[in-house]
Amino acid sequence: MSTTPRLFVDAPLAEGAHITLPREQAHYLINVMRRETGAPVRIFNGRDGEWQAVVSEASRKSAVLAVESRLREQTGVPPLRLCFAPVKKSRTDFIVEKATELGASAIQPVITRRTQSERVRTDRLMALATEATEQTERLCLPDVSEPVTLERLLADWPQGERVIFCDESGEGEGAWGGPEGRARPMLDVLQAEPDPSGSWAILIGPEGGFDEHERAHLRSLSFVRAVTLGPRILRADTAAVTALALWQAVLGDWR
Amino acid sequence: MSTTPRLFVDAPLAEGAHITLPREQAHYLINVMRRETGAPVRIFNGRDGEWQAVVSEASRKSAVLAVESRLREQTGVPPLRLCFAPVKKSRTDFIVEKATELGASAIQPVITRRTQSERVRTDRLMALATEATEQTERLCLPDVSEPVTLERLLADWPQGERVIFCDESGEGEGAWGGPEGRARPMLDVLQAEPDPSGSWAILIGPEGGFDEHERAHLRSLSFVRAVTLGPRILRADTAAVTALALWQAVLGDWR
Repeated sequence: MSTTPRLFVDAPLAEGAHITLPREQAHYLINVMRRETGAPVRIFNGRDGEWQAVVSEASRKSAVLAVESRLREQTGVPPLRLCFAPVKKSRTDFIVEKATELGASAIQPVITRRTQSERVRTDRLMALATEATEQTERLCLPDVSEPVTLERLLADWPQGERVIFCDESGEGEGAWGGPEGRARPMLDVLQAEPDPSGSWAILIGPEGGFDEHERAHLRSLSFVRAVTLGPRILRADTAAVTALALWQAVLGDWR
Repeated sequence: MSTTPRLFVDAPLAEGAHITLPREQAHYLINVMRRETGAPVRIFNGRDGEWQAVVSEASRKSAVLAVESRLREQTGVPPLRLCFAPVKKSRTDFIVEKATELGASAIQPVITRRTQSERVRTDRLMALATEATEQTERLCLPDVSEPVTLERLLADWPQGERVIFCDESGEGEGAWGGPEGRARPMLDVLQAEPDPSGSWAILIGPEGGFDEHERAHLRSLSFVRAVTLGPRILRADTAAVTALALWQAVLGDWR
């Protein structure tokens, strides 16, 4: 297990560059991780790959890194956007952490009619996503957007992007309405998609699910794939993690 | 969305039976959920299906339910056991909640060489699993066992049960050793299993993964299937949820 700290920095990376860390990151590296001058650090900026660096200056309040050599070329993640209705704070945090680990390229909070937690601090979510990115060995951050209403999200839908609609309606029916009536298991839907290449999204509703009006609207759209996630009622955070994992396993970069 | 409370009770259920709730459950129903005499409640005991009941006596400290009629016949979940190395408290709690939602039939804490959190309060985990069972519309509780060492777990392995070995070693290699060298993606392993019927388990290591000795031992066992869960490093809790979801989607009751 590597114990070399791995940090995201927002600066160009090249051999011989010197990076002055922001105060919080310097505090983490020097006072929490207890690294001294000469200690190795791995850094990435989401554009230039991952680099080996060393601590070249360290004090209680500041740190400078000297960039040495590139360890890995830049790589991205598959085009998979997670759109989810914010739930209570700890579960929203969890969704953002897990979406980052599971390789979501973008994270979009969505306000639906039954959404109870409309206040989303995007800067906090971005900080959580950055921490998860450092931990999970990704080379790029997910893009965390400001919340939008479901109506606006669907009206501005990008051409060609398909969306997996996980309707955890909480009604105990064990079936959700797709365009032809009953929704099908997500694995079958993914494996039956004639041309699955290109961009995808996953849409997760709030606790209590989408309302009838929202569901009818979703069902009417050609880019929507309604799916079931088994016979048990899943919480919104469980549904998000499950759908991301299944997508990566079938259409993503897990093979 | 149903707002009828759903409670697990440890008593035989039959038409006309009266159930005196334990003090904590009575407090929850009467003081937290604010139900009064005559209010409907759904109850299950893991054996007799789900029943409609009503509150027949209510005071600040006690409650009695009158059992009316059966709503659903008893059903089980597929034979899927989650064996996991306890991690820090909030993440262990999370694993137990999600394993219950995702239909694990049993939950087995396992002490490995790198396990940092050996103290596991099984009664607390059982309470968490019970709450998740009530919420997720399951009719049976998962069986939560006392922790065992990995050595003991493998020595006493039930005949015929196969185990998915998710080795989140944290070494950033992106490959784990299976019997033939490199482990394969979990989806491929499950879909290639010649006769997948029967019992399965999922084995998740601690943060930092299994050590070399443990991995070599696991690789030597005929009932072990080593799998990869993609190119990113997953936390132990993410790996547990992911593996449970994939198993249910491919071999479980999601189709």
